[in-house]
Amino acid sequence: MKQNQLWLNSLITSNPQEGFELAIKLSRMGVKSTQPDMEVLKKLRVEYANSASGLTMASHVIAVNFQTISAANNYWR
Amino acid sequence: MKQNQLWLNSLITSNPQEGFELAIKLSRMGVKSTQPDMEVLKKLRVEYANSASGLTMASHVIAVNFQTISAANNYWR
Amino acid sequence: MKQNQLWLNSLITSNPQEGFELAIKLSRMGVKSTQPDMEVLKKLRVEYANSASGLTMASHVIAVNFQTISAANNYWR
Amino acid sequence: MKQNQLWLNSLITSNPQEGFELAIKLSRMGVKSTQPDMEVLKKLRVEYANSASGLTMASHVIAVNFQTISAANNYWR
Amino acid sequence: MKQNQLWLNSLITSNPQEGFELAIKLSRMGVKSTQPDMEVLKKLRVEYANSASGLTMASHVIAVNFQTISAANNYWR
Amino acid sequence: MKQNQLWLNSLITSNPQEGFELAIKLSRMGVKSTQPDMEVLKKLRVEYANSASGLTMASHVIAVNFQTISAANNYWR
Repeated sequence: MKQNQLWLNSLITSNPQEGFELAIKLSRMGVKSTQPDMEVLKKLRVEYANSASGLTMASHVIAVNFQTISAANNYWR
Repeated sequence: MKQNQLWLNSLITSNPQEGFELAIKLSRMGVKSTQPDMEVLKKLRVEYANSASGLTMASHVIAVNFQTISAANNYWR
Repeated sequence: MKQNQLWLNSLITSNPQEGFELAIKLSRMGVKSTQPDMEVLKKLRVEYANSASGLTMASHVIAVNFQTISAANNYWR
Repeated sequence: MKQNQLWLNSLITSNPQEGFELAIKLSRMGVKSTQPDMEVLKKLRVEYANSASGLTMASHVIAVNFQTISAANNYWR
Repeated sequence: MKQNQLWLNSLITSNPQEGFELAIKLSRMGVKSTQPDMEVLKKLRVEYANSASGLTMASHVIAVNFQTISAANNYWR
Repeated sequence: MKQNQLWLNSLITSNPQEGFELAIKLSRMGVKSTQPDMEVLKKLRVEYANSASGLTMASHVIAVNFQTISAANNYWR
């Protein structure tokens, strides 16, 4: 992750689905911050995208980030 | 997940049970966002649906999403 | 889980202990939503009920659901 | 867990430390709700009390329950 | 953990860093409540302090406790 | 972690991205508090930065810390 690149300007989205997509992005940026090498990430992605527990863990991280984004957007009420 | 398909319009449901069902849906969409291939998902589903820890992990993700949806609905008070 | 069966009418309970029991129920419904076959569930239950990490994971899911229910009940203050 | 026994009357405690002790109790009751046999629990306890990851998982569950109890007590401010 | 020893008087700290240190303490007390034997704890500490997943799990518990303490301190705003 | 070194002055950041970077820092400090030896950390980092589940677990801890920081900043609304 290049720190000087702007990728997270706001947590506000126009609807829940865009919020969910932002949650996916945050989850991936959390991974990239630890392993920035795209080649390694692609290889590992194949691995956990074919593992039941890997996918459930990924969905868990998205759920936590979606909780944050939903609160930020006052749940799009 | 086709990004341009609308599947999450609102977090508001008419009662807690519908909220729980939406939490299940969000949990599955979190999985699909990482592994969109339905054939792979079906195969893996058999695997974790027969694993005690896989099922508990799935229930955990649903619990986190249900927390978000419950707050969005002001707990259907 | 038969979707058309009503099992979650409200998150409101008369005291914390009933709230805890509801949290247990939600945790089990999260499992059932993924594996509805009661025979498989009974077999797996023996497995994780005799595993230290399985039991701790189960208690974790209950804790998350109890957090939701406690907030819904304004912590029974 | 005998359902008809009253063990959780209130989430309110007189100070943070008692709240932490209640969090420990809730975590154990979460375990007991899945495995009520005290003999099995004692045996498993030896197992996870001597496992680094088992202990960290136990501390995690306590942390979630302590979060709930702290909010219930308005953080004893 | 000697129950009658006072170790958690308040969740209020003078700044975020002290709050983080208190979160570390709570995480350790969660472990000690399950395994009070200091000799066993020292031995296990060596184990998980040299395990990548053990350290990430420990950091996770601290994060949950820090969330509680941050809310208690109104985020030191 | 040298306790007397000031590294966490405030949870307030000027925007979400800086908040995310602070969440990464908190996650690492949680690890360092358990294993302060930088040589060991570097070695373990290689290990989990090449493990799919290790990276997902790291992203999970960042998500929890980001939740705290986002609330502290009133979600940068």
